[in-house]
This record gives sequence, C-alpha cells and structure tokens, in this order.
Amino acid sequence: MGIRLQTELCKIFQIRFPLFLAGLAGGPSTVKLVAAVSNAGGLGTLGAAYMEPEAIRNAIEEIRKLTDKPFAVNLFAVHMSDCHAGIEVAQLELNRARDELNIPHATMELIETPDRFAEQIAVLMEQKVPVISTAFGVLPEPYMRQAKAAGIKVVTMATTVHEALLAEQSGCDAVVAQGSEAGGHRGTFDVSIHPMGANIGTFALVPQVVDQVRIPVIAAGGIMDGRGLVAALALGAQGVQMGTRFLTAIESGAHAAYKQALLASTEESSVITKVFSGRPARGIRNGFIRQWDASGLEPLPFPVQNTATRDIRNAAAEQSNADYMSLWAGQATRLLTNGQSAEAIVAQTMEQARALLL
Amino acid sequence: MGIRLQTELCKIFQIRFPLFLAGLAGGPSTVKLVAAVSNAGGLGTLGAAYMEPEAIRNAIEEIRKLTDKPFAVNLFAVHMSDCHAGIEVAQLELNRARDELNIPHATMELIETPDRFAEQIAVLMEQKVPVISTAFGVLPEPYMRQAKAAGIKVVTMATTVHEALLAEQSGCDAVVAQGSEAGGHRGTFDVSIHPMGANIGTFALVPQVVDQVRIPVIAAGGIMDGRGLVAALALGAQGVQMGTRFLTAIESGAHAAYKQALLASTEESSVITKVFSGRPARGIRNGFIRQWDASGLEPLPFPVQNTATRDIRNAAAEQSNADYMSLWAGQATRLLTNGQSAEAIVAQTMEQARALLL
Repeated sequence: MGIRLQTELCKIFQIRFPLFLAGLAGGPSTVKLVAAVSNAGGLGTLGAAYMEPEAIRNAIEEIRKLTDKPFAVNLFAVHMSDCHAGIEVAQLELNRARDELNIPHATMELIETPDRFAEQIAVLMEQKVPVISTAFGVLPEPYMRQAKAAGIKVVTMATTVHEALLAEQSGCDAVVAQGSEAGGHRGTFDVSIHPMGANIGTFALVPQVVDQVRIPVIAAGGIMDGRGLVAALALGAQGVQMGTRFLTAIESGAHAAYKQALLASTEESSVITKVFSGRPARGIRNGFIRQWDASGLEPLPFPVQNTATRDIRNAAAEQSNADYMSLWAGQATRLLTNGQSAEAIVAQTMEQARALLL
Repeated sequence: MGIRLQTELCKIFQIRFPLFLAGLAGGPSTVKLVAAVSNAGGLGTLGAAYMEPEAIRNAIEEIRKLTDKPFAVNLFAVHMSDCHAGIEVAQLELNRARDELNIPHATMELIETPDRFAEQIAVLMEQKVPVISTAFGVLPEPYMRQAKAAGIKVVTMATTVHEALLAEQSGCDAVVAQGSEAGGHRGTFDVSIHPMGANIGTFALVPQVVDQVRIPVIAAGGIMDGRGLVAALALGAQGVQMGTRFLTAIESGAHAAYKQALLASTEESSVITKVFSGRPARGIRNGFIRQWDASGLEPLPFPVQNTATRDIRNAAAEQSNADYMSLWAGQATRLLTNGQSAEAIVAQTMEQARALLL
C-alpha cells in the first residue's frame, strides 16, 4: 500500500513523473508545449487530430529537435462520416454568427471532411512515435498490431468502466479515466448511448476503473496541481493527465482572448455542448453557445458541425472575439496560473505532491 | 503540509474520525444508523427534512439512548411554498403511474405542504442537538444566533464556491462541498440560476472551495472508501461526508428493492432528475423517470412535486416495485458492499486510509 510518486506507469512510458499532457487538439497544442512537458519529466502530447499528415510529420520532427524524451501523439479514433441531413437549417443559423463577425455566408453545398485517419496513423508508424493516444475509441486492430510490433505504447481515453475494459482488451498499455470535470471533448466512445457524453465525476470514475482493469489508470478531469496528483494516486490511479492547467502556460498556443476568458472563469462557467464540433465537449459558455441553444436546433453530427463552424472560429480568432471561439475548459479554472512555463507547472505540481506525502 | 487523518474538523465536532454520514432524508435514515456511525467514531446524521416535529423529538431521544457521542440533524433550509400552476396536467401524468400501481387517481384539489421548518428547528434547539446541518441554503440569521448561543455547531452543504462563501459568512462551523457525483438532492441554493443544480465534480470543487474559505471543508460526492477519504484530504478537505455507501448498511432503512437496485447499478445508472421532488437529485434511472421524461412536462416546483408523488412512492414501497421509488444513488455504486454494519464500514474506511498513508 502507500502512495508513491514513482509508479509502474513511469517505467512503462519511461518518464520521470506520472504526468501526461492532454491532447489539446487545435491551437493550444504547440511543439514547444509538447517538448517542454517531456523535458520537464512528464509526457508531452501533440494533439494531432485536426492536422494534415504532412503537418504531423513536420511537428514530430520539430519535437524531436527540442527533446530526446518520450512524447505522445493524440488522434481521434472515429469514422469521419459526412452526414448532411439538416445542413441547410444549420447553415442558416450559423449565418447569424457570420453576420456578427462580418464574414460571408456559407454556400449550401456539401461539407466534406476528408477522413485522414489512415494517413495520420501511417505517419505515426513511419516516425515510430513513442506513444499513440486516442480519443472517442480504441486504435483499430490492424494498427494496434503494427504499433505493438514497432514498440509503440498505446493509450486510450475512457469515460466509463465499460470503455476502460474495451481499451484493455484492445491491447492498450494504459487507460485514461476521464471524469466529467475535464475540459474539451468527452472521450465517450458511443454517443448514441450517451448523447452528451458519459459524465461520471473523476472521484467516482477512477476507483471503479482501477478495480476492474489490470493496466495502469491515468486520472483526468479537474486535476490542476499536486493536490490533484496525490488525490488521484490515493484513488488508485498511477498518474494524471492534465489539460486545462497547461492552456495558460507560456508555450500554449491558446489565443490570448481564450487565455483571458480562462483566467476570468470559475467552476460555474463551463457547460457540455455539441455546438462547436457535433460531439459533446466542455467549454466556457459564450455567445455562440447561447445563440445556438436558443435556436433549439440539434447540432450536426461530428465532424460535420466542426467543419461547418470552422470559418466562424477562425474569424473569431482573427478578431480576438472570444464569443465565437471554442473555449474548452475544465471545472477547476480558479486554480489556473498565468504566465508560467510548462516546466514550472510540472515542477510546482511535483513539489506540491512531494510536500503532501511527507 | 502532509496528510493527517486527525484534522481540526475532528476537534471542532468532537469526533474521532473525519467522517460524516449524509442526511439520507426519507426511509434510509434510521436512528440505529445515525447512532451506529456516531458510535463508530464518525458523525451520524438524522435526515429529518420530511419528519414531523414530534417525530424528530422522538428520534433524537432514541438516538441519545443508543449513543452518548455527537450527532447531527439535517433539515432543508428552503421555503416550502405551494405553487399550483400546472397541477392538473401533472396529476394526469402521475395518474398513469397510479394506474400501473393500481392505486386511486388524485383529486384535482390543492396540494398543501405545511411549512414545518420553524417547528422543526424549535425541536432541535429545545433538544440542544450537537450539530445542525442544512441543505438548499444556510440557516436563517435568527436561528443561527440561537444555535451559536446554545453551543450547537452548524454545517451547510454547498455546490459552488459562491455558496460556500455564503455558508461561511452565515457563521457555519464547516461547509460540505458537494460534488456532482453525490447521490440524492443537489444542495444548490438557487435553482433559478442552476435549474438542474450546480454540478461541479468533487475533484474540481473541493480544492477551489478550500482555497476560498477559512472554515473546514468536508468533501462529498463519490466518496466510498479509504481511498476516497485520503483523496479528499489530499485536495485540502478536512473530512468527508458519505451517503450512498451507508444505504446498503445493515442499519439503513432503505427498502430491500432499493438496496437491490443499488447493488445492481453501475456508474452509468444514475441521472439528475426533478421528477420525484421538484428539485434536482441524482438517482438510478427507472420506469418513473423514463415515463415522466417522455411526457415532456416540467415537474412541479419543490416541494409540490414531492407531495404529489408521495402516494406513488408509498405504493411502490408496499409493492416492492423499484420502478416507482426514488432510488437516490451516487456515481460510485460499484464500490458498494452488501450486509456490512455501519460500524464495519467506518472501520474499514479508516483502516484503508491508514494503510494508504503508511
């Protein structure tokens, strides 16, 4: 028994500290942030889900210039289907946001989101990245076999015990138990069963997963400092995954207006919404969420809604208008710090954890 | 720094272990359960919200025969208003449940729920109970002054940092930070702001409350064993409040069919619903919840909905039909044990916590 900071997880992933950076797909995930977390002793993660294969290759090469430590690349293991029922009605609603931002209305043509998953994975295999992590589902069987053969470690995010068992059965080396406090996308595999994601709190989810799987469990959701790390270890996790805490790090690519919104937010600010991507995700409630919710419309399925809202999010970023950005955030944003380096965040977290275990 | 099981909270409340029993208003809260938790070194709590003043007096006398240790009595600090808009439509819907249970339809007359709060509190003052705890709001000022003068300790349940600050300002000796994992009623003060309760996960809520108040914080929501206790202490809480774990204790008055449903449930079984009482509460999704939700009707306000559904819940209990009972449950029911005494639950929790802190 006893709580130890050096866990089996550290050995398996060859890291000093049991601390993973979350994927943070989109702007926040810079190569500098990934490398900084890895250099500080944790496991940096490149959120590559929305990246073109060539961009992923370049980023991996950049990361390797900045660190010789292990790192992960995170992808969405989900079929990028194009479903167009309701697209006209949705576009009319989105045009109201476009009017606010003074950008052109959408044409009513098909929204195509090319399925790059096979190409993305091929780059990760070619580059022999140390760790592949997935959200929304496990790595499909042929890829899992390839990864194992190449000595690549694999991690999946789970939001229920059932999903954690599927992750273990698929061959994962560890599983992230993502509690409802977590910012960004819910990792829920099957949104037809849980339309707004399975939202089990971290405190309840972690020990129940720990009791049911044999692979190491990484706790995620609401973990912001050394207190959270020690609490997660007490619940039986072997490490933590932190996302929101790193959004305001110096190396984070989060937009300045997004960082500002995070620092001004409280535990009451966020909601789980599908209006940005079509999949449930936790973010700060802003003008776009309020406007869409008032319409009463069901968002288009993922990733169609994501593709349909891209011009709006891009224009909002250009105009520094946080009301039309996706402001992913967990429920513990009062614990955010401003202007710290990722290295300082890792060091402070570990120091606080050590002091608690004295 | 360091995590210690003997906290300031233990001194203030004169208890051996930093473990409170939750109120569990309704059937589960028996005098035997309250006394057993207190005798085991925790703080037993009588869930007296729905009890007549005379019944509260009798229960307190019974508890005092069974233990000389401190205990708490929990009340709902909320105005029991009678609002009757929509009552006919609601009764028509409830009559469908009455048909299922073969009990008479409701008459369409006024539903009166007498406001017994002043009388309930008077009994607690007269009996000089060691601790008064409240849900839905703080103890109103004149009562707080009376309690202080009588040496009675006061605790309030909070679901946001703002509510915790209100509790501290009101003069509370400690505050329960109730995370979204918790079973039963959400303690949220103002349901006009948070119609389904403020649902911040325990992992996120506890450290944010701890950082903002000076009084001791008691963590609640998803805490089922020694792992949860140590995790809560790591997050900065000085103790825990456990409810769901004690529902299946030998001394619990929970209906056998309710206990069975709890033991068969998982982390995916519960939802937050207003259909039983008119206030948001977490319980296992059953036939009654599904039936009401399908109607699309808004439940009547608290406590009107509670009064209106009472005959249904009573008939369900008589018929051992768990589909029409309120099956309050937290999100960590896989960690429940069957047939343990409350004493054994407290002892096992403390032993597990001690082992973790070795």
